[in-house]
This record gives sequence, C-alpha cells and structure tokens, in this order.
Amino acid sequence: MKILVVNPNTSPEMTADIGRAAKKYARGDTEVVTVCPSWGPRSIEGHFEEALAATATVETIAASRDDYDGFVVACYGDPGLAAAREVTQVPVVGIAEASMLMACTVAHTFSIVTVLPRIVPMLHDLVRTNGLEPRLASVRATPLSVLQIEEDPGRAEKEIVAAGRRAIEEDGAEAICLGCAGMGPLDKAVQRALGVPVFDGVAAAVKMLESLADYGVTTSKVAAYRDPEPKELVNCSPALQGAAR
Amino acid sequence: MKILVVNPNTSPEMTADIGRAAKKYARGDTEVVTVCPSWGPRSIEGHFEEALAATATVETIAASRDDYDGFVVACYGDPGLAAAREVTQVPVVGIAEASMLMACTVAHTFSIVTVLPRIVPMLHDLVRTNGLEPRLASVRATPLSVLQIEEDPGRAEKEIVAAGRRAIEEDGAEAICLGCAGMGPLDKAVQRALGVPVFDGVAAAVKMLESLADYGVTTSKVAAYRDPEPKELVNCSPALQGAAR
Amino acid sequence: MKILVVNPNTSPEMTADIGRAAKKYARGDTEVVTVCPSWGPRSIEGHFEEALAATATVETIAASRDDYDGFVVACYGDPGLAAAREVTQVPVVGIAEASMLMACTVAHTFSIVTVLPRIVPMLHDLVRTNGLEPRLASVRATPLSVLQIEEDPGRAEKEIVAAGRRAIEEDGAEAICLGCAGMGPLDKAVQRALGVPVFDGVAAAVKMLESLADYGVTTSKVAAYRDPEPKELVNCSPALQGAAR
Amino acid sequence: MKILVVNPNTSPEMTADIGRAAKKYARGDTEVVTVCPSWGPRSIEGHFEEALAATATVETIAASRDDYDGFVVACYGDPGLAAAREVTQVPVVGIAEASMLMACTVAHTFSIVTVLPRIVPMLHDLVRTNGLEPRLASVRATPLSVLQIEEDPGRAEKEIVAAGRRAIEEDGAEAICLGCAGMGPLDKAVQRALGVPVFDGVAAAVKMLESLADYGVTTSKVAAYRDPEPKELVNCSPALQGAAR
Amino acid sequence: MKILVVNPNTSPEMTADIGRAAKKYARGDTEVVTVCPSWGPRSIEGHFEEALAATATVETIAASRDDYDGFVVACYGDPGLAAAREVTQVPVVGIAEASMLMACTVAHTFSIVTVLPRIVPMLHDLVRTNGLEPRLASVRATPLSVLQIEEDPGRAEKEIVAAGRRAIEEDGAEAICLGCAGMGPLDKAVQRALGVPVFDGVAAAVKMLESLADYGVTTSKVAAYRDPEPKELVNCSPALQGAAR
Amino acid sequence: MKILVVNPNTSPEMTADIGRAAKKYARGDTEVVTVCPSWGPRSIEGHFEEALAATATVETIAASRDDYDGFVVACYGDPGLAAAREVTQVPVVGIAEASMLMACTVAHTFSIVTVLPRIVPMLHDLVRTNGLEPRLASVRATPLSVLQIEEDPGRAEKEIVAAGRRAIEEDGAEAICLGCAGMGPLDKAVQRALGVPVFDGVAAAVKMLESLADYGVTTSKVAAYRDPEPKELVNCSPALQGAAR
Repeated sequence: MKILVVNPNTSPEMTADIGRAAKKYARGDTEVVTVCPSWGPRSIEGHFEEALAATATVETIAASRDDYDGFVVACYGDPGLAAAREVTQVPVVGIAEASMLMACTVAHTFSIVTVLPRIVPMLHDLVRTNGLEPRLASVRATPLSVLQIEEDPGRAEKEIVAAGRRAIEEDGAEAICLGCAGMGPLDKAVQRALGVPVFDGVAAAVKMLESLADYGVTTSKVAAYRDPEPKELVNCSPALQGAAR
Repeated sequence: MKILVVNPNTSPEMTADIGRAAKKYARGDTEVVTVCPSWGPRSIEGHFEEALAATATVETIAASRDDYDGFVVACYGDPGLAAAREVTQVPVVGIAEASMLMACTVAHTFSIVTVLPRIVPMLHDLVRTNGLEPRLASVRATPLSVLQIEEDPGRAEKEIVAAGRRAIEEDGAEAICLGCAGMGPLDKAVQRALGVPVFDGVAAAVKMLESLADYGVTTSKVAAYRDPEPKELVNCSPALQGAAR
Repeated sequence: MKILVVNPNTSPEMTADIGRAAKKYARGDTEVVTVCPSWGPRSIEGHFEEALAATATVETIAASRDDYDGFVVACYGDPGLAAAREVTQVPVVGIAEASMLMACTVAHTFSIVTVLPRIVPMLHDLVRTNGLEPRLASVRATPLSVLQIEEDPGRAEKEIVAAGRRAIEEDGAEAICLGCAGMGPLDKAVQRALGVPVFDGVAAAVKMLESLADYGVTTSKVAAYRDPEPKELVNCSPALQGAAR
Repeated sequence: MKILVVNPNTSPEMTADIGRAAKKYARGDTEVVTVCPSWGPRSIEGHFEEALAATATVETIAASRDDYDGFVVACYGDPGLAAAREVTQVPVVGIAEASMLMACTVAHTFSIVTVLPRIVPMLHDLVRTNGLEPRLASVRATPLSVLQIEEDPGRAEKEIVAAGRRAIEEDGAEAICLGCAGMGPLDKAVQRALGVPVFDGVAAAVKMLESLADYGVTTSKVAAYRDPEPKELVNCSPALQGAAR
Repeated sequence: MKILVVNPNTSPEMTADIGRAAKKYARGDTEVVTVCPSWGPRSIEGHFEEALAATATVETIAASRDDYDGFVVACYGDPGLAAAREVTQVPVVGIAEASMLMACTVAHTFSIVTVLPRIVPMLHDLVRTNGLEPRLASVRATPLSVLQIEEDPGRAEKEIVAAGRRAIEEDGAEAICLGCAGMGPLDKAVQRALGVPVFDGVAAAVKMLESLADYGVTTSKVAAYRDPEPKELVNCSPALQGAAR
Repeated sequence: MKILVVNPNTSPEMTADIGRAAKKYARGDTEVVTVCPSWGPRSIEGHFEEALAATATVETIAASRDDYDGFVVACYGDPGLAAAREVTQVPVVGIAEASMLMACTVAHTFSIVTVLPRIVPMLHDLVRTNGLEPRLASVRATPLSVLQIEEDPGRAEKEIVAAGRRAIEEDGAEAICLGCAGMGPLDKAVQRALGVPVFDGVAAAVKMLESLADYGVTTSKVAAYRDPEPKELVNCSPALQGAAR
C-alpha cells in the first residue's frame, strides 16, 4: 500500500525525521511518502497554530486524495483529522489516537509525555474527545519546545525519561505515549530507560493503516465523516475547492 | 463597549441576519459590528468546512484584535474559538458555549436543535469538550441545510418546533438551544410555540461579553490560552503573522 | 430591572457587604435590594445550616415574588435555588452556578477557593449536580470560617491567594471562583495577586440576571421547576403558604 | 435497637402506612417508632416542598437525637439526610439510598418507578449525587400524586406495574426501586407481578440500620458530616438551636 | 438462615480467620459455614490467581447450591461473583461490593486499603464495574502480601493504619474499606486508630445477606444473572456440570 | 511471527471457523494456529461459562507460552485476557478490545451486535472496563445462540443485519462490531449489506498482534500485568503450576 504521512508542522528537518520513523516500522511492501504543507506554522504549540495547521493539513490531503491508500496526520493534536476523513475515501489516522489505542492493548493505563505546559489542557481535551479518559493516567509536560527536541535530542531524551518516570511512579502509568511527533526517534531509547512500552504515534498510525488495509475497511461515511456537502468555498485554493466537489 | 461578531459562514445574507440579532439584544451603549471572513465556506455543515472556517475566523479576529473590546464566534461549532482566545487580550465567546451556559440558569437540561443529521456527532463532541454532557438532554437534527433556513424561514420554524417538541416530550429537555446561527431570528417564535426558554447563541454571546466587560474579567492567559509562542508562520497572511508577533 | 439579592446567612454585616458588591457591578438601570432572612444561621458552614437556610431563603423569595424581576441566592451552596425557581415566574440565579458558568467563558478549567475543609465535599456535590466536574480543577479549602473573612479581610486575602496559587500551580486551574459570598469584596485584589480571572458569584449572578432580562427568558416551567402542586402546608408561614397557592 | 422513622410528608395516614412497612421487616428485637414532623407539606412533589421538609425533618431528628440508635428519612428524595447526619452521632439512612444500594446486590441495573413526571429530574439528580448513575437503567414516572397512592392502591399497583414492565423491557432494568415511601405497601404485589426484585426504601433502610448497629459503625465525622459549628441560629426552634450546641 | 462463606484463597488459616469474622457479626439465628475450594491458589494477588479462584469458587457454590440460604464470596476482588449468581437461586454477595455499599451510608467518600501495589489497578476496575467511582476517594496499597497479614498482624495493622491515614488526610476519604479478606480481624483496631468507619467486607456481606433474607428478595433472573443455558461442559467436574443442568 | 488463537468455546467447528478467519487476514509471514481448550463450555453465553472458559483459556496459553509470539483470546467477552497477560511475556489481545479499538479509527461511534439478550449487560460491563463507553452507540442483541450462528449462517446474517440497521438508524452507530467470534465469517456480507465498517474481532486481533510485533512492544509488566507472584497452586494442572513458577 501507499501511505502519505503529513507533518502539520512546516519544519523540513522534523518532516524528515518523521519520514524516517514512519519507514522504519512500515512493512516491506508499504510505500511511505512524508510531506509537510506548503504553508503554516514551523511548529505547533497551541490552539492558534493547530487551527492553521488543520486547514493546511486537510488541503494537503485533499490535493493527494486519489494518490494514496491511506493518510497519517503526524502531529500529536491530530489537527484536521476529522476534516480529512470527509475529503477522502481512504482511511486517515492521527498519531495521537493511534498511539493511545495501541497502548490500550498492552497497558491498563497510559500517560502522555509532551512538550510545553501550555499543551497539557489541549491534550486533556484530545483524550476526552477520543473518549479515552478512563485509560489515561496523566499528561506530563516537559520544558521542551517542539523544535528543541530535534536541536538537542540528548536533553530531550533526559527530560522525557524524567517525566515518564514520574508518570509511572506517581500517576500509575503502565505505558508512555510520546506526545509530539518530534519525539518519535527517541521511542526505543525511552522504552529501554523506563522499562514500559513506549509509543511513537507515527509508527502506531502506520501500523494501523496497514491493518485497516489488510482487513479491507475504511472510514464510515454515514454520519460524522460524510463527504462535504457541495457548496461554494469563497477564495479557497483549488485543492480545497476540489475537496467539496 | 465595541463588539465584533464574526460569522464564520461567508454568506452576506446570513451575516446581515446575525448582525440584526446581535444588535437587537445588545445594550444601548454596546456597539456591534458584524462581519464574515473574506474567504471560506458559504455555510458550515461538517468538519471540513469547520476547519477552514476556524482559520478564516481566527485570521479575521487577529486582524482586528486591537479594535474591539470583545469578539463573538457566530457559528454553532464555535470554530476557532480557542485559537482566537490566544491571539487577543479581550474576551472571545462562542455562540454554542454561550447558549448552553445561559440555558443552565433556567433549565435542568437542554436540547440542541440543529441542521442536517451529519452535524449531530459534531455537536455531541462540542458538548463533551465543553464538559456539559450532564446537562444535555439530546441533540435533534432537522432536514434543513444552513442556507435553507434563510431561504424559507416559515418551513424552518416548523421543522425546529417539531424537533424541539420531540426533545421536550421524549428526551426531557426543558430548554432549547438553536444549533445554528442562522436560526437566531426565529428564537422568539419558537419559544412561543414550545413554551420553554429558547436560546439563540448570538444573543447569548453578546450578553456574556457585556457581562464580562462590566465585571472586568478577560481570558485567562496562564495555560490553555497563552499568547502564541513567537515563531515563523510560513506563507501565512499578514494578519496571521501579526497574531504570533 | 429590580433584583432582590438574598443572603441566606443572617449576618447583617455580611449582607451589607454583599449588597455593595452587587451594586458595584450592576448596571445603572438595575435596582438592587439586598436582604437576609428573618431567621436562620448567622453563617453557613455545613449541610445542617444549609438546610435551614434553604427554607428561610425560599420563604424570603416567596414573600417578594411579585416585587422583583429576578432573584439572587447569595451563598456558595446555592441553598434553596431549585425550590425558589418553583415559587416565582422570574429568574433565580445562584452565585455558585453563576460564577462557574461565567468562568467557563474565560478559562479551560477553574478551581473554587472556599472556607473550612468540611465544605469541600459539599462543593464537590454542588459542582456534580451542576454537571460541571469536567471543568473543575479542584476545590481548595482555607482555614477561614465565613465570619472570619469579614473580621480580618487582610488575613482572608492572604489565605485565599495562597490557596488560589496552589490551585493554579498544582491543579491546573486557570480561573478562581470565590467559594463564599463573604469573599466577594476581595475579588479584584485576589485577581491582581494571582494573575488569573477571579469570580465573585454575587457579581456574576447579577450580570446573569441582567442578561436573562435583556434577552427575555425566564425559568422553564415544564418539569423540574413547575409551580408547586396546590396542597396543604401544615403550620407553615403565610409566605410559604402563598407560594403553593 | 430503637429506630425512629421520620416521614417528611405530614400525612398521618401515609405515616401510619410507613410505620407498618417498617415494622413488618424489622427484626423482633428492633423497636420502630414512626412520626412525621409537626409542620411542613402534606406530600412532597417538588423542590419547594422538599426544602421545607428537609428542615422539618432535621428538626424532628435533632429533637430526638439522644433517644434512638438510628434514624430513617422516609421520603424518596432523602430530604435533609446529610443535615441529619451532622446533628446526631447515630446512623441516619435515607430510603432512596438504601433501596438503591441494596438493589445493587441482586441486580446489574435498576430503575426507579415514581410519582408525577415533575419528579423525574429530581431523582436523576439524587442518583447522580449518590454516584450511582452507572447502575441506573431509568427513572419512570406514573401519573400518580403521592396521596393518590393511598387513596386508590389498586390503581396505584396497576400504574406501578405498567411503568416497571416498561423499565424492564425497554430500559434493561433488572430490579425496581419504588420511588415514593407511599408505594411501600405494594412492594410484594409488584414483585410478584413483575418477576424481578422490588425494593421499598423503608424496609431497606431499616435493614441497613440494623446491619450498621450489629457491625458497630456509625456516621463518619471527619469531613462532610462533622457536627455543626457552634453558632447563633436566629429565631430558630429550640430543637434546631440544640442541634448546634 | 444458613450462609456459606467461600474463601477463594485456599489457605486454611485465612479461611478460619474469615470464619471467625463472619460469625462474630452474624445474628444469633444465622448459621455460618466457612470453606475454601479444594483447589486453587493459596492467595490471590493478581488476575491469574483471580481467574482460577473464580472457577473454583463457582464450583464450590454450585456444589452446595441447595444447602444454603445465601453465599458470600470472601476475597476482595469478588472472583466469580456474577457467575455464582447464575448457578443458584439464593443471593450471593461479594465482600468488596458489600463493604463499599455499606460505606456509602456513613461516608461521603471511601478509600480502599489493600495489599501489594499490583492490586491497585484491579481494584480500580472493580470499583468501576460496580459503578461506584464517584464515591471512591482512592485505592491505597501497602507492601503486604495476603499471607503476610496473618503471619504478622501487628505489622499489618501498622501498615494499614498508615495507608488509611494518608487516604483520609491526602485523598479526602471519610471511611476505609479493608481491601483483603485477611485484614478483617483488624477492623476494629484500625477503626479505633483512624477515627473513621472501617469496613471488613466479610462482616458487611453477612449483614447484607441477612437483610436480603429478611426482606425476601433474591437475585434478579431476567438478564445478567439468568440460569446458565443448558449445554455440554466438556471435561468439567460434576458440580460444574450440575450447575448448567 | 507465530500466533496462537485460542477459542475459549470448546466447539471444534467454531474453532475451525475462527481459524479460517484468522488466517484469511493474517499476513503471508504470519503463522496462525487455532485451538480450543481441552475442557470447558461448548459455547459461552453468560458469566458462569465465561468464568470456566477464562481458566481454561489461561491454562491453554500458559502451556504454550514459550512457543508463540502472540496470543489471541477469541471470544467476545475477552475471558481470561488480563490473567493471560500475566503468564506470558508476549502480547495477548482480546477480540472484543481489538475490534472496538480498531473501529475507533474509522467511526465516531460503534455498536456491538451480539447473541442472546442476556449477554447485553456483560458487554456493557466489558465496554466500561475497557473505558470506551463514550464511543459506544449501543449493544444490540439478536435471538441467536452462539452455536446457532454456525448451524444457520443465512439466518444469522439476516438477524445481524437487522440489528445492525437499527443500531445505525436509531442509535447513531457508524460502525458495527460483531459481538461473537462465531459471527466472524459473516463480516464482509454484513458490511456490504449495511454500508458501514464491520469488524470481526479475530481479524482485528491478528492485525493488532502483527502491529505490536512489528513495532517491538509487548505487555507492560510494572503493575496490572506483572508476572504472578510465586506461590502454591493447590491441585492445579501442571500448566497452571508452571505459569506461577
């Protein structure tokens, strides 16, 4: 199958990292292409940037909707995920949902370790929207910004391990979801350090797409994710226009 | 005080209607300006259109953030609400949240009567994100699209009253929130027909902004709604660029 | 409009304080009268006193039900609120519900800072009955009794700020609701000290009543808050007798 | 042991019926006295009457607090229950809580069959305050007022059985709690008709008090149910004054 | 009445202890027999042992189902409880559910103090399955294994009191449920030390069975606990075979 | 990888069916072996049979724990799942959890269509234990017993489609999980008839195991699923004895 991984953060370095993570765990017969939108925030650390990135991400997916067998939204707020499901017939998986759902099969409860403290309420909303609060032990912030992870992976690993350890010892977490796509490359190092399963959402989303493809199911189109109603989209890009055709 | 009401739907007729509703219930010393973004969907009836409208709405608010004492997001999905709170220091109120919160002061439980059935899961998510499920009796759809409300208000009123009646009789609703900004002009007619309090979110949001201004409180900036982190926004409009300055 | 603020605590000093707070934030054309019942506990710090105060409060409101356009129940347990809604056709707002609902428009989550620790479970029940647990960060007690607030406002402010700070830093609160009507006069001092929105329920309730009046809605009478069934009230005061006429 | 059953409804006939039910299931060595307050509503069918009855009930219990080993609050809203726990050292059990807790030992979920439809939201609040929503299948109203049950027990039985049958067949109920003390005498007839366990709260509360006495536990006094703080109760009866001594 | 208390742990000493606790609080006319299964784990400290014990317990109950008026499952995971309800017509009560339900009548919230930390997630699941999360303050582990309680009751008491104190002071617990049948003999000592109600589930379950018998109700057989469907049980013991006859 | 699928129902025909379903969707390099325990109920339609099957299943898995890279528990109550996770170091996935988690990636809400009505409360408990209630639209029973599905697949398909249609139209389901392993062979026929994604848990579990293996994660061993404590298992089979070695 052929998967497009869209990094909603417009950072080429981070996009390259995500691409490597996606390919590392993809099956031999899975082709993975990774891109970021042509516009939008370099990194996503709040609702404002997430709103922009959602539009940019759905535009990117709409433009390629006939060219892939599945899409990954590779930012841990799953920006534009529901919208993307409307504009394509093939499955779209978010890295946050994928990591959390997969964690449920190996752990009674999980924690999310993420970037700046301002992200914490956003992630609580995300978990709540996914209906998974009963499985959440905690959301733990680090002092890291998104782009600092890549700039200093050694420091990032230390901070993530420290936050993860507190989640295990104080909050009862049995698995850790890495709450930023940029943390993906550190997954196995953190797992070794903590001794519990650690999930990079990019890897989890790729595996989920492969599973959906093998099993022959795709997005339900009867209610929440119906195709957009045909209508005028004023001053919008051709890709967006096409999505509502 | 001076309020900007932003209709995320780019329909001039609907925007004019919303403007009239906002002015009708505003106090004499409240100045209300109503606009719609310069781009985006004519009407919002799904996640795709909501994603676009969120960006267009936050851009509109960011461009005017120094010119008003408060903002209303006038579409019943509150698109871009959290993002808008980040880009301005004055309060921003969504019509969905305002109608639901106000309904809680006069009714034990409320129902939302909205447009097409595909909206129902979106509104359940919205109520859930607002933490108000325990007060929700039901979400009831009508066969109406957003723009049909304005085209045939007589039919719209009939459909809304019918759905509202079922909500009261079968679901235990004690108040009705009109789940589309376009339904606002029908609020009092529906209230008379149903005999329970009926809330147009536009009116509710204007009143809430006046109350916040009188009391001297504005958006909390310590966590969820902090100002955006300074960063590069690639290929974004000056208004968006300015929001993250 | 004409509002009666009923302080369920029979303390004249506290009632005067509440009256000042109510008037301070009322609009110029809102007339505010503040009273306390002619019987009942000097202060309310438990279920026993709250039960008495509920009856005394509903009696007070019933006696004046034709004389006002709205009523405020000015004790942070909202004693007798639902009962009061049954005995009058005009809106009745409790200070706890008003502060919490208003806080939801400027903060992702809020904490309540209140008096003695014994109040904490009562407030958890109150938040639960209002269906707002998902928005609650925590309830934080102080060592203060109700009447000590007025006796030593300087100490009270210090204790409230200290508890509020812990709520923000440890519990993730983004706004503070002052969990006792007597704390109202300290709202702006606490807000300045904490840097987050702070809500006095008395002010919030007055604003909510003004909003309901402007919008022309009142209590739903179809189920929870129907007029009392006509029946004999044995050995009850004329005001109570009249309420069920 | 010696139990005082307080019927918050000031109806002598209903009080006599409740007394018979309480005695019927009490053990041989349990002495049961049944009274109603000297003032308050003849029957309780709303928040207003419940507020009055709460005060009258707690006054009645306070006046006898040194004379009994346990108290029952015998109205299915448990009016004044928490307050009563503060004013005595011996256990106080409400008939609603007792019936629901006991039902949990023989059924996966239960429904409450009660009087007028206006009671339904009150009972939902009650179940919620007791934290038992996950075990509740539904609340089903009948067209009966409280006093009509006694006036025409044959009709009452028919209505209760009809509502109970719908609860079992449509809502998945596996047991029925009779949501009015006046329905108690019909418990076994309804149980025979429906073929599921049926609970009269009066019987359940008496059994619970006997169990607490046998096991030697009484109300926790560390937080929610501490003795009232010593304070002035303005113009209150000697019994109430004494409760806060 | 005649009660069989089944200790799912196959430890004769613990079984004897449980028998003494059961008899201590049983009424004079209640005959109590206490047994453990003929096979299964010496002690239950995880899901694996609980699964085995569930089968052994239901087999034990099935073998005696015509000989008793009620059964107690005396291990704080209530292993096999729902299954046991299917194989007999008389009530079956688990010690976890009984202790929690009884605690609800004397405390606003309770904590469970239990054995090894690995038990904590199991007990959270159990509380959740019972629908009682809103009443739970916390689950607190001790470093004790099940069999160590009996080996060194003095140490056990100290550990339980220490954990209980933290539950009261830090988690807001108002009562303590002893989360292991082996802790039963320490109930009154712990209660004296902590000053809050303390519940041994064995005692609570015996009292609950006596109450159910007095009131004349037994397990609902319309849905969750219907008799087993007649079918072949391959290579199962005669007792199990008989249960599905 | 090498997977053992254990059918907790001791029906050879059903086991063969499950084996075919598992192989159909497994990857080419995944070896699937399917067995049923040597003892236990022919089919599982209640708590009693589930308890027996849990023990038989965990025994079967313990006996083979060194021979496979992953295990599937192939009955829609996931009997013995948590226990099995304790006795092996490789992942164990239940078909109920797998189908529900996978459904979350293509549908806003799902319903479970299952066998006899008596199963409904069991499945509600299961969804609740998995923390997925917010995603559940409903559980719909059919009049089918487990073994009737295989005896008359044509009738089974009709009943499943009818129940699924009601779930979609009346309950808002957007996907259907087949609530019995025996329904697996009908998945695609039902999907075609209903037009929404349909999930057989056996297929979903196999895909999940492959994903976990590819990603290199296995069961968390820090709390809920630690290895069993070493202890005596009285009169238990060698396989069970070995599990606690």
